[in-house]
Formats: sequence, structure tokens, C-alpha cells
Amino acid sequence: MTTKTETEPGSGASGLLERLVALVGSGFVLTDTAAMSPYLTDYRGNYLGRALAVVKPANTEEVSAVVKLCSEAGVPVVPQGGNTGLCGGATPLADGRSVLVSLSRLNRIRALDVANDTLCVEAGCTLAAVREAAAAAGRLFPLSLASDGSCEIGGNLSTNAGGVQVLRYGNMRELTLGLEVVLPDGRVWNGLRGLRKDNTGYDLKQLFIGAEGTLGIITAAVLKLFPAPKARATAWVSVPTPASAVALLARFRAACGDRVSAFELVGSSLLKLISRHMPRCRPPLPAPSDWSVLVELTEAAADIALAPLLEQTLNAAIGAGEANDAAVATTQPQADALWALRENANEAQKREGFSIKHDISVPVSRIPEFIVRADTALRAWQAGVRVIAFGHIGDGNLHYNLFPPPGEDEAAFIARADEANRIVYGLVAEHEGSISAEHGLGQLKREAICRYKDALELELMHAIKHAIDPRGLMNPGKVL
Amino acid sequence: MTTKTETEPGSGASGLLERLVALVGSGFVLTDTAAMSPYLTDYRGNYLGRALAVVKPANTEEVSAVVKLCSEAGVPVVPQGGNTGLCGGATPLADGRSVLVSLSRLNRIRALDVANDTLCVEAGCTLAAVREAAAAAGRLFPLSLASDGSCEIGGNLSTNAGGVQVLRYGNMRELTLGLEVVLPDGRVWNGLRGLRKDNTGYDLKQLFIGAEGTLGIITAAVLKLFPAPKARATAWVSVPTPASAVALLARFRAACGDRVSAFELVGSSLLKLISRHMPRCRPPLPAPSDWSVLVELTEAAADIALAPLLEQTLNAAIGAGEANDAAVATTQPQADALWALRENANEAQKREGFSIKHDISVPVSRIPEFIVRADTALRAWQAGVRVIAFGHIGDGNLHYNLFPPPGEDEAAFIARADEANRIVYGLVAEHEGSISAEHGLGQLKREAICRYKDALELELMHAIKHAIDPRGLMNPGKVL
Repeated sequence: MTTKTETEPGSGASGLLERLVALVGSGFVLTDTAAMSPYLTDYRGNYLGRALAVVKPANTEEVSAVVKLCSEAGVPVVPQGGNTGLCGGATPLADGRSVLVSLSRLNRIRALDVANDTLCVEAGCTLAAVREAAAAAGRLFPLSLASDGSCEIGGNLSTNAGGVQVLRYGNMRELTLGLEVVLPDGRVWNGLRGLRKDNTGYDLKQLFIGAEGTLGIITAAVLKLFPAPKARATAWVSVPTPASAVALLARFRAACGDRVSAFELVGSSLLKLISRHMPRCRPPLPAPSDWSVLVELTEAAADIALAPLLEQTLNAAIGAGEANDAAVATTQPQADALWALRENANEAQKREGFSIKHDISVPVSRIPEFIVRADTALRAWQAGVRVIAFGHIGDGNLHYNLFPPPGEDEAAFIARADEANRIVYGLVAEHEGSISAEHGLGQLKREAICRYKDALELELMHAIKHAIDPRGLMNPGKVL
Repeated sequence: MTTKTETEPGSGASGLLERLVALVGSGFVLTDTAAMSPYLTDYRGNYLGRALAVVKPANTEEVSAVVKLCSEAGVPVVPQGGNTGLCGGATPLADGRSVLVSLSRLNRIRALDVANDTLCVEAGCTLAAVREAAAAAGRLFPLSLASDGSCEIGGNLSTNAGGVQVLRYGNMRELTLGLEVVLPDGRVWNGLRGLRKDNTGYDLKQLFIGAEGTLGIITAAVLKLFPAPKARATAWVSVPTPASAVALLARFRAACGDRVSAFELVGSSLLKLISRHMPRCRPPLPAPSDWSVLVELTEAAADIALAPLLEQTLNAAIGAGEANDAAVATTQPQADALWALRENANEAQKREGFSIKHDISVPVSRIPEFIVRADTALRAWQAGVRVIAFGHIGDGNLHYNLFPPPGEDEAAFIARADEANRIVYGLVAEHEGSISAEHGLGQLKREAICRYKDALELELMHAIKHAIDPRGLMNPGKVL
């Protein structure tokens, strides 16, 4: 909150702050450094921004009025949800010119339509709250991320979040039927439709999904719900090579169809880190090979047993040499223990120290070749580099992270990150892939993408940006 | 083809024709009225257009060069695929200023990537050819339309085609991973990615899908493939009311999950038309109620029997009063006979004569209320009007068509079509629905949509159009 002694009332940004206070109440306009601090840095601590204020509107009307005031004052706006992004997309620039708009108070479940299998929720609902509302109605909202309890739907939409269930249910984009968006001038576009089919012109919601807040602020969404699975079966499979993992995926899809709800590749280097830092997490097979797969089947029908299907498919895969061995969970705690080997990936890496991180995708068919070529190129670049590769192989999405060789100076390694990025991203481009599969661009990859997207694509992106936000006031310095 | 005596070489449209001939060959530039005729009217015969020429380029490079020449000459371009659209979106305006570009010669399957479950195809491939290419690889491409054998993928993309499998697999938009597009100035955007996850900026392909050729010409696409179902089970269910059909859908989804691959509502008025015009097509139940449902389950696993699941679910529904009676197909010919009752809908209506047609959607939960209110309002408007309602109730999509009362003058009825449209579309708007669920806007609904979309949404659509096609040369007079 500002006082008259600090500001020139009615002029520029200072006048703006007074108007914002009058609008949303002094308790919801933070200008104190300590109060703003949690909003001004990102989850990984890579970015430290500044802002004129952090504003916390209560509802869409207030978001609209806040953005209108900022637009009139020519002040940029940075939208923020749960602030769990990994690319600095929700952190304001260091120039301190922006107002940060937190959506966290817009946290109502607005409507549940069970017969339409839809849920209308506000942007500030946590993903966990949305999943719980779906579950309470006997339905599934499939998006599932490690940050479930703190990430918010507006951020999930703005980054087109992915996760482990994309193979079966799609990204956030595919899970969304309608949006409500506050445009850069403060007007509200009500596109909150709950329709599976609507072909009446350009599908405007697609613009805002994945735009990382650079075209407007998503304030609410209509999300698709799905039948809740009645049974789950989970197995840990040791596979000879990444190519066997790809063959195993094809076998599972052919044999089990869309029951294959997760198919995760885990390299032995990650298992070693997990064993080191979480000694209670242990791989279920005695002599793990270099590569393992975590596969999960789900089934909607109550009377159909998954275990025989899982076991038959695994036996056939072992017979065909696509798998060495497999451990099937027979209880929920056993299944949880298998998932812990995958879900502790981030925590184990964090405890190990600094790494150069990549979130890449290539066509599923090209994953094996990518892994071989990237490993070779990186070892030539830095003998002893430790490659931690794991991820959603069913989507062609790998988290491909590099730790310094044992004993190597961390600072010297960090200093060479850009070299490593160019090697990895260059190979991604050769394999017709993406340098950001599910984390977005934010600030982190805004410049890198210019090297890998063709000029025409960037030109089209700029044309869209200019058409919707001609003054460049929405989340400046991100994406473009 | 033009000759020097007919044209002023090098000037305006006439010079353009010569350049087009030089580019694609005289055999592929049609200017003769008879030769152009099939391209200048739509499938339903509602529109008759004129064009400077019909040009048939052989590949993307030629499409690019053709569009570039047209752009330089300031001549509008109308893209056309199989010309099976129902809203006149591929028919040029009557002003005769445009060049019609047929994509039908771009009919190569460019690449199959089995391990990535993707197929890269050119715009002029028929849907049937794409489905066959998928089947030959042991996969399913799920889009299925009555015009399978003649509609082309470019048109399916440009109209975001739907059909009977949307409930399970989504619209064309959800089936597409990448696009190649010739932009209004002739440049080619290569967005032919085969990635399930790619978050590197605005998802440009979404702009062109469903844009009905008003932003560019789609020349190729990367499509998703799915596991081929190994078994199918089909039933015809007599239900007391549309509300029971909605309850039955929820029951089936909960009990069978995504096995529910089709769920179609058929009104008895349609069955009467089918019986009249196709006496060999007979409903399987002796005393049909006013409403029936055609339900189909599919199963990917070879060893899991669908029949018990279908029968249990139907028995439970009958017990709960959601269904009166059901007939389960036990052979493929029986299943085909059930499908014939749904698939002959268009042919039976065509034989019956003229009708006022609507392709609408509302949330699934509001279908019953919509049907009651629309029927009541229309009977008040015109006593004895015959309402034919049927469609994809699982997607909230009804084909809602009106025939004149028996003996009523057809011309007088046609003259009042706009009144009927306003009644139906007004109720669609009240039920938060869409006046074009799966057929697009084209020329047919270009003006109507202005009454039902808010001004801000139309403004955003115009902003996008202006950003991508500032001179308005792409398919003028359609959508906007």
C-alpha cells in the first residue's frame, strides 16, 4: 500500500497504486519488499524480479478492472498462479515496471455438470482441488503433476501442462472445453462453453492455452471429466535398451489399448541417485539393467481383471526379448513403491546438486537414436559427465539432465551450460523435436527458441501477439 | 486455359492465368465453364459460384507458387478438397473474382511412423485412403464420416470434422499433431511435427484447423494413429425419453469407460422416414418408443469379451427404468443393420424432400430440455411441422431438421426458414450451445453467427484474420 508522501496522486504508476488499492482493498495490494518477495522469485530460484506491486483481485471483475487500470497507465501486467513454473514465466522482469497479478484468490469451483462431464473452475483453484472436486463426483480429472497441491489451473492452462497421463488423456489443451479470459485492455472474453463440438469460427481458446500469459489472463475454464478408473495394475520392467522400451510400448498399446495410462522410462543413473539419497526407495529387481520402464494400466469396468492382461503382455515381451524381467505390484503399497522410484526423480536430483536440465521431446520412434547420439556427443564434450535421462517415453518426452563428473568443479560446469544446451538442442532439432516439451519457454528459453524455430514461425507468433496485445503489456519478456 | 486473343498478356487476372498455366501446365488450369462446373457448386446444391479458373497444383511447391501469383495479382484464392462441405465453405462467391485451388492432386501418404503412431498425409488424400493406410499398419485412424470415400483430409482439417467417434477420440483437431500450410502470400509454414508434447510458443496449427481456408491453405498434416480395436459390440436400445438417453450414457461411461465409442440418439420420426424410403431397413424392436439409442463398444484387448459387459449394463439400465428394451447384435450383419438405421438418415431425408436443417450442440445435460422446448416452440410456429431429431448425443450434437406438415406447400415452408432458424438458434443460445457443431460456418451461417457470438469474440476473430491475411485474399465471404 502506498501513502500520499510516497506518491504523486493521479500520475503514472504511483497514481495507479492508489487506484488499485481503492479497487481491491489495501490488504490485497502488496508493495512491501518482504511481502512481495515470495511472488518475485521462481520455484527453482533462477530468477529474481521486481514489481510495482503484487495485486490480489478476488474475482474476474476485479481482475478486469485491475488490468484496465494498468492498461490505462501503460503499466505491464504479469499474471501468476501457484508460482511453480520451471522457466521463469511467472516472474516479473528485474526492471520493476510491472504489476504482478496473483490469481490465487479466484479459487471457486463454479459449476459441476455431471451429465456433461464438465467442471467450471476458476484460475486460482489448485490442481489438487480440481482433482478432488472431480473425484467427489465419481469422475477423474486426469492431469497429475508433482506440484499438484500448489500449482493452479490458470498456470496449468497457460503452460499447457503435461505430466504422466498425456499418453492416455492428452495435455491440458485437450482437457479444456472453454475459457474466460481478461484481455490486455481489461475486457472479459467469456468463452466458457461446455461443448464437445463447436465449429463457429476460429477457436480462440487455443490462443490463450500455452501462451504463458502473454496474450491475456485466463480467469476460469470449463474442463473435461472422465470416467474414474476402477482398477489399476502397475509393473516395473527391466528392458535391454531404449529401443526395447519403444517396442514394449507398441506391444502394450496393441494388446491393452488405452488402458496404458502411463509408460515411463527410467535410466539406471537416476536409480543410483535415488538409492543414494533415498535409501528406502529400492528398485524391485535384483540386477537392474541400464533401463527400466514403469507401466501402469487402468480399467473402467469393475469386473474385468487387469492382472492377467498385464502378465500375458509382459510374458510375451520377455519371450520376444523386449524385456529382461518384470516385477508386478500386487498391492497398492507395492505400486506406490514403484511409483516412488519415478516420482522422487526431482527430489533426488535436487539433493545431488546442480544439474543442467533439459525438457525435450522427439517422435517416440526416434528416442533410442536421440539417446545414443546425445550421450556420445556429451561424453565427447565432457568426459565423465553424468547423464540422468528419464521421462514420459510414451509421449517422446525426456527429462535429460547433466551432472558434473565426480569431483568436477560445479561453477566451471555451470559456466559451460550453454555449450551443453547447444549440443542437446542441436540434436533435438536434428530429430525433429522440441526444446520445451512441457515446461514452456518463459524467460529461460525465450532466446534459445529463436535458434530452433524458423523465422516464419516466429513472425507468425509476433503477428498474433501484436493482434491481441498491440502495446506489449501482457507478461513482457516471456515467450517472445 | 487461355489464349492470347482472349487476354491482355501480363496485365491483371488475364496475365495471371497465363502464368498459372506456365506453372502447373495447361491441363491443370480449367477455365472452360463445363470443366469448372463441378467445382463451382456445393454438395447440397445451395450455392453456385464463379471463378477465374480452377487450378490443380501437383504438390506443395506448386500450391505455394500459385498462391504467390494470386497474391501478387491481388486475386482471392478459394481452397477446395473433396467438395463435400455442407455450408458452402469451398464454393467461390458469385463475383467470379477468385481462383479456385483444388488440392485433390496432393494425395500422397508421405510417411508412416508406426512406433510414433503417426501418419503424414497430404491434404488431397481422401479420408478413406487415410483410414486404409492406418489399417494396413494395424492401426486405427478414427475419423469416420458418411462422405469417407470423397471427402479429403484438408477439408476435414479446415472444418474440424467430427462424426460418430468424437465421444471417444475427439474432433479432427484432437487427431492432429502437425500441419504444413501455404500462407496468404504463398510462403510455406512447415509445422509438420509428430510430437505429443511441444510447448515452444503459440500453437499455430490451431489457427488453421477449423478456419475453413480463410487463413491459409493446409497442404499436409501429421495425424495421430490409435490401437485398432479387436472387438466391437453393438446394441439398439429403446429409451423412454431423451433424459433417459442421457442417464444411459452416464451409466455406460461409468461401467465401460472409453469402450463407449459411439452413442447416437435416433428419434422415431427419423425411423418412420427410413422405413418409408428404405423398407429393408427395419428397427429391431417391435414397438419402438419415441426415442432410441445406438450404442457401440470397442475393445483393444483380444481376450476380453464385450458381450457380457454390454448385456450387464443394459440389464441394469432396464432395471433402473432408463431403457425399455434392447436388441444386441450377435453377428456383424446384425450390427451393420443397426448402423444402417443411423447411417441412412441423410439419404432418407433427401428422398423425403426439402427440410430446414440445423447442426447444433448444447451441453449433453441440456439436450432433453432443448428438445422439449424446441419442439414446443416449433409446433407453435407451424402446426404439424415434422421434426427429425437425431445425432451424436454423446457430444451434445443434434441434427435437428424440419419438414413441412404433410400437404403443406414446400415453397411456402422454405420461405419461412429464417423464422425457424431464429427459433432454433435462439434456444441454442439460451442453452449455451453452438449453431454449428460440426459443419462449420461457410457462407450458410456467416451472417447468423453475428447474432449469437458476442461482439468481442467477433472482434478477436477479425483481429486474427487481419494479422494473418491482411488483404483478405483467402476464401473471402466465408466464416467472417
